[in-house]
Amino acid sequence: MADEVATFTAAYQSRLPVLLKGPTGSGKTRFLEYMSYRLGAAQPLPLVTIACNDELSSSDLVGRYLLTGQGSQWIDGPLTAAVTHGGICYLDEVVEARKDTVVILHSLTDHRRLLPIAKLGVVLEAHPDFQLVASYNPRYQSSIKNLKHSTQQRFVAIEFDYPDTGREAEIIRVESGVDGETADRFAELGAKIRNLSLNNVIEGPSTRLLIYAARMVATGVPLGQACEAAITLSVTDDRGTAAGIREIIDAVMGG
Amino acid sequence: MADEVATFTAAYQSRLPVLLKGPTGSGKTRFLEYMSYRLGAAQPLPLVTIACNDELSSSDLVGRYLLTGQGSQWIDGPLTAAVTHGGICYLDEVVEARKDTVVILHSLTDHRRLLPIAKLGVVLEAHPDFQLVASYNPRYQSSIKNLKHSTQQRFVAIEFDYPDTGREAEIIRVESGVDGETADRFAELGAKIRNLSLNNVIEGPSTRLLIYAARMVATGVPLGQACEAAITLSVTDDRGTAAGIREIIDAVMGG
Amino acid sequence: MADEVATFTAAYQSRLPVLLKGPTGSGKTRFLEYMSYRLGAAQPLPLVTIACNDELSSSDLVGRYLLTGQGSQWIDGPLTAAVTHGGICYLDEVVEARKDTVVILHSLTDHRRLLPIAKLGVVLEAHPDFQLVASYNPRYQSSIKNLKHSTQQRFVAIEFDYPDTGREAEIIRVESGVDGETADRFAELGAKIRNLSLNNVIEGPSTRLLIYAARMVATGVPLGQACEAAITLSVTDDRGTAAGIREIIDAVMGG
Amino acid sequence: MADEVATFTAAYQSRLPVLLKGPTGSGKTRFLEYMSYRLGAAQPLPLVTIACNDELSSSDLVGRYLLTGQGSQWIDGPLTAAVTHGGICYLDEVVEARKDTVVILHSLTDHRRLLPIAKLGVVLEAHPDFQLVASYNPRYQSSIKNLKHSTQQRFVAIEFDYPDTGREAEIIRVESGVDGETADRFAELGAKIRNLSLNNVIEGPSTRLLIYAARMVATGVPLGQACEAAITLSVTDDRGTAAGIREIIDAVMGG
Amino acid sequence: MADEVATFTAAYQSRLPVLLKGPTGSGKTRFLEYMSYRLGAAQPLPLVTIACNDELSSSDLVGRYLLTGQGSQWIDGPLTAAVTHGGICYLDEVVEARKDTVVILHSLTDHRRLLPIAKLGVVLEAHPDFQLVASYNPRYQSSIKNLKHSTQQRFVAIEFDYPDTGREAEIIRVESGVDGETADRFAELGAKIRNLSLNNVIEGPSTRLLIYAARMVATGVPLGQACEAAITLSVTDDRGTAAGIREIIDAVMGG
Amino acid sequence: MADEVATFTAAYQSRLPVLLKGPTGSGKTRFLEYMSYRLGAAQPLPLVTIACNDELSSSDLVGRYLLTGQGSQWIDGPLTAAVTHGGICYLDEVVEARKDTVVILHSLTDHRRLLPIAKLGVVLEAHPDFQLVASYNPRYQSSIKNLKHSTQQRFVAIEFDYPDTGREAEIIRVESGVDGETADRFAELGAKIRNLSLNNVIEGPSTRLLIYAARMVATGVPLGQACEAAITLSVTDDRGTAAGIREIIDAVMGG
Repeated sequence: MADEVATFTAAYQSRLPVLLKGPTGSGKTRFLEYMSYRLGAAQPLPLVTIACNDELSSSDLVGRYLLTGQGSQWIDGPLTAAVTHGGICYLDEVVEARKDTVVILHSLTDHRRLLPIAKLGVVLEAHPDFQLVASYNPRYQSSIKNLKHSTQQRFVAIEFDYPDTGREAEIIRVESGVDGETADRFAELGAKIRNLSLNNVIEGPSTRLLIYAARMVATGVPLGQACEAAITLSVTDDRGTAAGIREIIDAVMGG
Repeated sequence: MADEVATFTAAYQSRLPVLLKGPTGSGKTRFLEYMSYRLGAAQPLPLVTIACNDELSSSDLVGRYLLTGQGSQWIDGPLTAAVTHGGICYLDEVVEARKDTVVILHSLTDHRRLLPIAKLGVVLEAHPDFQLVASYNPRYQSSIKNLKHSTQQRFVAIEFDYPDTGREAEIIRVESGVDGETADRFAELGAKIRNLSLNNVIEGPSTRLLIYAARMVATGVPLGQACEAAITLSVTDDRGTAAGIREIIDAVMGG
Repeated sequence: MADEVATFTAAYQSRLPVLLKGPTGSGKTRFLEYMSYRLGAAQPLPLVTIACNDELSSSDLVGRYLLTGQGSQWIDGPLTAAVTHGGICYLDEVVEARKDTVVILHSLTDHRRLLPIAKLGVVLEAHPDFQLVASYNPRYQSSIKNLKHSTQQRFVAIEFDYPDTGREAEIIRVESGVDGETADRFAELGAKIRNLSLNNVIEGPSTRLLIYAARMVATGVPLGQACEAAITLSVTDDRGTAAGIREIIDAVMGG
Repeated sequence: MADEVATFTAAYQSRLPVLLKGPTGSGKTRFLEYMSYRLGAAQPLPLVTIACNDELSSSDLVGRYLLTGQGSQWIDGPLTAAVTHGGICYLDEVVEARKDTVVILHSLTDHRRLLPIAKLGVVLEAHPDFQLVASYNPRYQSSIKNLKHSTQQRFVAIEFDYPDTGREAEIIRVESGVDGETADRFAELGAKIRNLSLNNVIEGPSTRLLIYAARMVATGVPLGQACEAAITLSVTDDRGTAAGIREIIDAVMGG
Repeated sequence: MADEVATFTAAYQSRLPVLLKGPTGSGKTRFLEYMSYRLGAAQPLPLVTIACNDELSSSDLVGRYLLTGQGSQWIDGPLTAAVTHGGICYLDEVVEARKDTVVILHSLTDHRRLLPIAKLGVVLEAHPDFQLVASYNPRYQSSIKNLKHSTQQRFVAIEFDYPDTGREAEIIRVESGVDGETADRFAELGAKIRNLSLNNVIEGPSTRLLIYAARMVATGVPLGQACEAAITLSVTDDRGTAAGIREIIDAVMGG
Repeated sequence: MADEVATFTAAYQSRLPVLLKGPTGSGKTRFLEYMSYRLGAAQPLPLVTIACNDELSSSDLVGRYLLTGQGSQWIDGPLTAAVTHGGICYLDEVVEARKDTVVILHSLTDHRRLLPIAKLGVVLEAHPDFQLVASYNPRYQSSIKNLKHSTQQRFVAIEFDYPDTGREAEIIRVESGVDGETADRFAELGAKIRNLSLNNVIEGPSTRLLIYAARMVATGVPLGQACEAAITLSVTDDRGTAAGIREIIDAVMGG
C-alpha cells in the first residue's frame, strides 16, 4: 500500500495522469477517496467520478447547450468543472467509454494540459490542481474494447489486486461486525474460491461480497444461507460451478 | 420460502442490493410485492418497478429536462425519485438494459450509495430507506447479454423456482376457482411438462399459464380446449412438440 | 369457428390476454372485428389496431410530449387510450415490434394489469373492459425474431388456418360476385396450390388473393389473365414455380 | 400491352392494389402515367410518386408535426393526401422501403381501406378513388431485401419486360429523331446485349439507354462514340465485359 | 480530350445526365469546370459541387426547415437551388452517398426531370438549363458500395484516365514552374510508378502529386526530399513498397 | 529535423496540405507548435487542433445553427474559423474521423481551396494563410480504418520516428530534471524496449513515458518503482511481456 501511495503522490506532484488497473472490488475507488483526503490541505481535494459507458458522449463530459426560456445556455460538464476549478477527475472503467470521450482527453494528458471545447470555440487551460485519473480491469480487455496505445501511454499506471488474507480478514471484521475468527475464515474462503478464478471459470469473489456475507451473518442469517446468497449465487449462474463453490464453503466455513 | 424471506430481510436491514434469479412466472414480482408489505411499517414500502429493455436509456431512469413554456424543466426519473424519497426500486430483467443504465447503478450499489446526475451536475446521497432490487432469468443468459462481473458482484442473490406441486395446486385452486382435485391435476400437469423443458425443448408452463387454463375451465370451457389455448399453443409453435404436450395432457387430465 | 369464439369469449370474461396465431390472410383481423361486435353490448367494443414494426417505439404506444405554443403537452398513445377508456387493443404482428414495445406490455398482462408511464411518472390501472390481443405468424418465427418466453407465456393462444374448401368457396362467392361453380373451382385451386406451400416453396395463396382473382373475373377479365395477375405473380417471383402454378391453374380452372 | 391495360383497369375498378414487376427502364413509370390519363375523366387521375429508400420513414408518408411560431402544426404526407383526396399513390421500388413504411400499408390494402395515423390518434377511411400501386424489380430480390408474404399477397401483380424489337425500334425512332434504319439497328443491339444479361453478367441496356445513344447520334456524335458513352460504359465497369460489348456493337452497328 | 468535350456537349444539349468515371486526380473536377465555362454564354454555367459521403442526407441536398424566431422556415438545399435556377449540379463520388440521396435523383434523371420535395409536398420541374453530373472511381467499386443498375443506367458515361506523358509533362511544367526537362522526368516517373499500381499494389501517383513534388523542387527543396514527401510517403505506408518506389525515383530522377 | 523543417516550410509556401505520419509520442504535435512559431511573423501562426474521432461530425468542423432567444444563429466551427481568418488547422489522428468529416476537406486540399458550407448555401474561399495539416499513425492502419487514396494523395507527407538516443537523452534530462547519466540510461532503456515492439508485441514506450518515469525519479520515487508505474504497466497488460520488460529494466537501469 505504501508503494501505491508514494507512486500516486509523486504522479500528483507532477500532475501526471494516473491509471488504476485491477479487478472488480479490489479497492480502486476507495484508494482514490483516500488519496483525495491525503493530498488535500484544509479539506480533501475535490473528486469527481464519472462511470464510463457506451452511451456517455463527449457532451456529457464537456457540457452542452440547454434550451431555456432565454434561448440556449451553456452548462459545464463534470470534466470542464474539474478542469476549471481543480481537483481529481476520475473516469471509472474508462475502457467502456466511446472513442470520442477518450480522445478529448488527449490534449489534457500531455504537456499541453488543454481542454478544447469545440462547441464553445474555446480552449481551456487546466487549473494547476487538476489531475486526471482513470481505471480499468485488464481482465476484460479484449481486441474490441481496449485502450488505444496512444491513450494508455499518457498515464502512469498503478496495479491493484485483492488484499492479502490477513489484511482482508481485518477489513471484513471492521466492516461487517463479525468476530475475528469468522472474519479469518471468510478471508480464507475468498482466497480459496479465487484460485478457481485463475482458471477463468469465475471472477472473484471480491472483498465486497465477503463483507456482504459476513454482514448477513452478523444480522443473524445462518452461515450457509449467507454464503449461498452473497457468494455462490453472486459469483456464478452455472450449477456445476455453484456445487464446487459450495464444497469449498463447507470445507472452510462449515462443520 | 422462509429462507428467501429471511435472506431478503437481512439484506434489507443492511440495505444490500438484491438480485432475484429465476424463470418466467416463478413469482419474483409477487415475492417483492409481499416483501414491500412485510418490511413496511404503517404502510408498505414504496415499490417502483422498471421493466428493463434495449431502449431504456439512463435518462429514463434518472430524469430529463423537458421543454415547457418557461424553458427547460427537470423531471425526476423513477430511480431518482426512489433514491430521494426511499423505498425499493426494482429493475425487472436487468440483463435487458443497456450498459449505460446498468453502469449508473454502480455508485448506488457499493458503500457510497450515491447517484450522480451528470446533467444536473449533482450527486444524490440515497435515502436511508432506499434499496435496489433487480431480477433476471439465468436461462436466457448468453455471451452477448449477461451481467458484467463488476455489476453482478454488487448484489446478494436469491434463487427462485416453480413452487412444489402441493403449493402450486393450492395457488391454482385459489386463483382460478376450480375444485381441489382439478387443481391437483393441473399442478401435476405443470410438473410433467416442465420435465420436457429440462431438455431445453420448451420453457414452462409457468404457474400463471396453469391458472389461465383452470380459470377458463371454471368459466365453462371444456378442459381439452382450455389446455390447448392456455398451455399447448402458449408454450410452443412446433407441431411435434405440441403433439407431445397434448399426449401428456390426455394422460394427466383426460379420460 | 365455434371453438375459437368460445375460447375468446372465456378469455375475455377473465380479461386474459389473447394471442392469435396463423398465416397471412387466414382471417385473424376479421375474427377480431367480429368478436368486438359480439362481445359489445349496445355497441361494439372499441377496437384499436396497431401494426407492429421495427420502428414502432414505446412512445408510439404510450404517448409523448408534443411541443405547442404553450410548451410541452402530453398526448396519449393508442395503448394508453385503450387502457384508460377500455376496449380491445390489438397488436398486429407483435413479433415485429421492438423489445421496448413488447416489454411495456408485461405488467399489463399479468395479475397487475398496470401500465407504467415512465415519462409521466404515473402507473395506470387498466379499465375493467380493457383487453390486450396480439397476432403473429409462426411460419415467420426465426431465431432472431421471436417472442420471448416471458412474453408468450402471458397469453392464451388461438390458432388460425385457411377455411375448409366449402366455406372458402362460399366466402369467395359472396365477396366477389362470381357464380357458385366458379367459386368452387377457385377454392379448389387455393387448396391445390397451398399443398405446394407445405414444402415451403411458397406461402398461400390467401383467401384474399382468391377473392381478388374472382373479382377480376366478375369484372370481365379472362380467367387465365386474372389468375396470372392475382395468384401466380403475387405468390412467387420464381419462373419455375410460376410455371408449376400455371399448370395447376390450367388443370383446375381451364379447359 | 392490351392485357396490362385490361388487368390494371379491372384492378382499378375494384380498387385492388397493384404491383408492377419488372427490370429497370422497362416502362413501369410511363405505363402508370398512361393509366392515370386513361382512367381519369375530365382530367387525369392525380398521381403521387414516392421513391422508396432506406431512409424513408413512415412519417415521410403519413405526415408530421412541424414546429411553427404558433407551436406544432400537422402537415399531411403524400400518402395521407392521396388517401384523403383520391388518386393513385405510387411507391416506386417498394422493396427498398423500411418495414415501418410497408407495414402502414396493410390496413389500406385489405377490405378495410383504412390509414391509421398514430400520432394524430385518427384512422382515415380511404377516398373512393384512392388506389395504391407499387413497383419492384424481382432481379434484385435477395434474402435480405424482399417483400414479406403478408405484404406481397395484398397486391394484384402485372409483369413488365423490355418491348419486342419492332416496338422498341419505333420508340427509339420517335424519342431520338434518328431514321428508321438506325433505330432498327439500335433495337437489335439492345436485344443482343441483353442476351449477355441472361447470364447475370450485366443488366440491360434499358430502352432508355438506347434512346440516349440514338439521341447523341442525332446530335452529330459519331456512332461508336455514342455507344461507348451511353451503352458500354453505362452498363459495365468491367474491362473484359466492356470489350465483349464493343464487339457486339461493331458487329451490329458498325462497318 | 476532344472526344470527351464532344460527348459532354452532346449530352448537355439533350440535358442527359453524365457520369464521369476515373481514378483520383485524373482531372474530372477540372474537366467539369472547363465545360461549365465552354457551355456557358456570357458567363460560365453555374456549377454546384456536392461531395458525397455516408452522412449526406437527402435533406442536405433538397433542403430543410430551419427554426427561426418566426417558427420554421424552409431553406433550399443545393440540388433544389440548381433545379430551380438552372446550371450543373455535380455529385462528386456519388457512390459514397446514402441510398436515399441517390434515389431522389431518379425522377430527375429520366424523361420526367422532376424533383419531388416530400417535406414541402411539391414537385419541382427542372429548369431547362439544369443538368446533373456525377463522378465515381470504378476501382473502389465493391459489392457493398456500388451504384444500383437502376441508377447507373440513367447516365451517359465518360471515362477518364491520367493524361499521356507528353501532356502531363506540360501540365507539370506550367503548374509548378520547373523547367521542361525536369517536368519530363516527373511525367516519366509518374508513368513508371503507375505501372506498379496496375498490380493493385498502390494507386497513383496522381498528376496532382507530381505537381506537388515539382513545386517543392521549384521552391528549392532537394529533388529526393521532394519526391519522398510528395510521392513515396503519400502513395504508400508499406516500407517494402516505399523502398521499391525510391528505387524507381533514383533510376528516373537521380544521378 | 532540418529536413522536416525544410519540407514543411516549402509545403507551407505553396500552401500544400501536409500529413504527419508517425507513432504515438514521436513529437508530431510539438513539431507543429514549433513550425507555427517559426513560420509566423510578429506572432506565431494561429494553430487550431481538432482531435478526430468516430463521433466528430462535419458540423463540429464547419459549424451549426444554434437555437437562441432570437431563433437560430449560425456558429462557425473551428475549420471554418481557420479558413476565414487564416492559420494552420490540424486534424489529429485524421484516420479516426468519419468519412463525412474527411470528404469536406477535398475541395480545400486541391487547387480550389474552397470550403462549401451546405447548410449556409455558401462556398468560402480559403484565406491566403490557411493551411491544412493532418496526422496519423500508420501502424494502426487497418483495412477498416484507413485513409482513402483520394484523400491521402492530397497531402505532402512527413514521417516521424522516435529521436535518436543522444537527442532523446537530452530531452529527458531537460524535461524531467534528472542528471545526464540517468537520462542516458532512460534513453537506452527506451531503445531496448522498442526493439521488442518491432515484433509487434508492444508499442513504445514513447519519449513521453520515459520523461514521466524520470520525473518521478526526480521527485524521489525509487527507480524500479518509477519504471514499473510509468513504463512496464503503461506499455502492456500481459504478465509475460511485463516480466520481459522488467528484466530489461533491471539490466539497463539497475544494479
